[in-house]
Amino acid sequence: MSNFPKLGILGGGQLGKMLCQAAADWHLPVYVLDRSDDFPAAPYATVFQRGNFRDYDDVMAFARGLDVVTIEIEHIDTRALHELEKAGVKVYPQPAVIDLIKDKGLQKQFYADHDIPTTDFQLFASKEEVIRAVNAGAVKPPFVQKSRTGGYDGQGVSIIRYREEVEEKLLDGACLVEQLADIDKELAVIVARSATGEVKVFNTVEMEFHPTANLVEFVVCPAALDGDTDGRASKLAVDVVQKMEIVGLLAVELFLTKDGQILVNEVAPRPHNSGHHTIEACATSQYAQHLRAILGLPLGDPQLLRPAAMINLLGEAGHTGPTHYAGWMDVLAIPEVYPHLYGKAETRPFRKMGHLTALGDTVAMARERAAKAKELLHIVTE
Amino acid sequence: MSNFPKLGILGGGQLGKMLCQAAADWHLPVYVLDRSDDFPAAPYATVFQRGNFRDYDDVMAFARGLDVVTIEIEHIDTRALHELEKAGVKVYPQPAVIDLIKDKGLQKQFYADHDIPTTDFQLFASKEEVIRAVNAGAVKPPFVQKSRTGGYDGQGVSIIRYREEVEEKLLDGACLVEQLADIDKELAVIVARSATGEVKVFNTVEMEFHPTANLVEFVVCPAALDGDTDGRASKLAVDVVQKMEIVGLLAVELFLTKDGQILVNEVAPRPHNSGHHTIEACATSQYAQHLRAILGLPLGDPQLLRPAAMINLLGEAGHTGPTHYAGWMDVLAIPEVYPHLYGKAETRPFRKMGHLTALGDTVAMARERAAKAKELLHIVTE
Repeated sequence: MSNFPKLGILGGGQLGKMLCQAAADWHLPVYVLDRSDDFPAAPYATVFQRGNFRDYDDVMAFARGLDVVTIEIEHIDTRALHELEKAGVKVYPQPAVIDLIKDKGLQKQFYADHDIPTTDFQLFASKEEVIRAVNAGAVKPPFVQKSRTGGYDGQGVSIIRYREEVEEKLLDGACLVEQLADIDKELAVIVARSATGEVKVFNTVEMEFHPTANLVEFVVCPAALDGDTDGRASKLAVDVVQKMEIVGLLAVELFLTKDGQILVNEVAPRPHNSGHHTIEACATSQYAQHLRAILGLPLGDPQLLRPAAMINLLGEAGHTGPTHYAGWMDVLAIPEVYPHLYGKAETRPFRKMGHLTALGDTVAMARERAAKAKELLHIVTE
Repeated sequence: MSNFPKLGILGGGQLGKMLCQAAADWHLPVYVLDRSDDFPAAPYATVFQRGNFRDYDDVMAFARGLDVVTIEIEHIDTRALHELEKAGVKVYPQPAVIDLIKDKGLQKQFYADHDIPTTDFQLFASKEEVIRAVNAGAVKPPFVQKSRTGGYDGQGVSIIRYREEVEEKLLDGACLVEQLADIDKELAVIVARSATGEVKVFNTVEMEFHPTANLVEFVVCPAALDGDTDGRASKLAVDVVQKMEIVGLLAVELFLTKDGQILVNEVAPRPHNSGHHTIEACATSQYAQHLRAILGLPLGDPQLLRPAAMINLLGEAGHTGPTHYAGWMDVLAIPEVYPHLYGKAETRPFRKMGHLTALGDTVAMARERAAKAKELLHIVTE
């Protein structure tokens, strides 16, 4: 198999696992680097290398002999990736793009500099600076504070609704403060841009967030939008991709405001929670599309073949310890319901332990099936 | 993951690989036994155990601690499986059913004993017995001779058209002789029967054979049949399954004769070449369905969501040696074309090296896409 590129993935969580699964159809050799071979991708990687993808030496040793290196998480130290890129390894998404995106301050500044509509924001070096600005009246609750780096799955985000909460709820460190947009819907559009420059767009999805965990709970596709709004959402997402010149997937999270504006919230340079449904619902999954993009292969047809609803399967509140997927067998009795269990050895409250996609003739049917499945499946301790 | 059964598969070829792929969504632990970790399933098994699935001791050692054991090929020594069954391991398909099916003489006799329509046949202990029967006028060309055991992928089958060919073309050993049916179409129906007794049927497919290799070359679904004929085909396949009481998949190959009869040709107690398209075209793939059946899970919805055409990717004539999948990247430019490359290290003429499914709005569109892909993809030596 002399014409098979050797692919490396930094990170062996569920996104790494699903990339390995997509690569399996082509029997592509996939090397995965992460800390424990208990992790979701380990059984499906061709070679699972134990190591820390945040460690310069581990990444450099891992990448020796690989043709293409990609990531499943952007919150990494990119020094090794820049080094590899200089040495001629294809690193996609490009380290410069990762640097831009993983710092939410730089990311916001990029939108401002490139005429990309986004919520108004201000940058601050510390919590104390924010407090001074609030006291001076330059920042007024309600607002959202986001840590510039390290935020993930609802971490690093604080919503301040009242003046009285400021001291208590503000996060330490460099941050940005955004005015709360008057949101009608939260949308996401996943776009792929290939190493050859080819671009393809998946259908817009609509997201609902879990009320306390600040995680996407429910994703439906197609989104209930008029054609004009949907078209503007796609166009804006493609515009971001073209301006960033990313190679790989970009998941663009959008706000549709009550007055009909579409604003970029934030982006992720990788397969994304809002695209899990593409595995069963689309002609090409986001995982296969990411592989195509970073390997310079022709991009796949992203068309939605069937309405879908996706739910995350989160660790049940009050359960921390060895994972037990209660009821997973029962959900298989519901037609067109596809559980994806990540096989994480330990569960904890709100941890992403799996997801489940339901299809149907309509979004309503898919959503009903997903909701029924969710009632049956609980991630608890043994 | 205390409620995950441990599954063992005897055989690590492409069918074993695709069973591992189906199990990956649920993160089921899958143990695979086969001779070389070069084989297709090795990278996707949770544990790949080197050994000979035809060796009693290897199978017994392999199965220690497993909950359920299945096969990807029926041409095995079932002594160990009988032993395991007695010891309380769930062995599906059941060893008695494998014994029945792997001997084509017993299989045919089963049809005769259970009022299942099949082509007329006679059993013989040797080549010499067949010659005597031909000389005595009891058997007349044209006929098909099939070895009772060991036949696979067109091996163990000889078509005798003329009296003059008999001595030269007859195979040695115990065999059966069938009259050549006057065939209009070759069909296949895959049926799943669960450990709980639940039964589900996939749509009937129509098969075309490679002119020289006697391998299925082209499978389309749905088959171009009137509703009555299609219904009779499904019903007959279910009837075979109910009478055999198999647990797992049964692929039932059928002849539709020119006078409208439907006859059982032969069956395979496992995922089958004629069901590869179910991965992309159906709500449940045959691989996921086999897992559900043998694990006693609710069976999945087998409905066809999209017309499909499947081609086997065979080793090119004149090429024996290290595998090179020429053009596999090019076929990705065709919409809704899904290559599955098995990753076998060595190619040889007519060896099954992969398959490819194309979908489309109609069978004609799917077939056209598959044919176009086939022109681009060639399995040659490096």
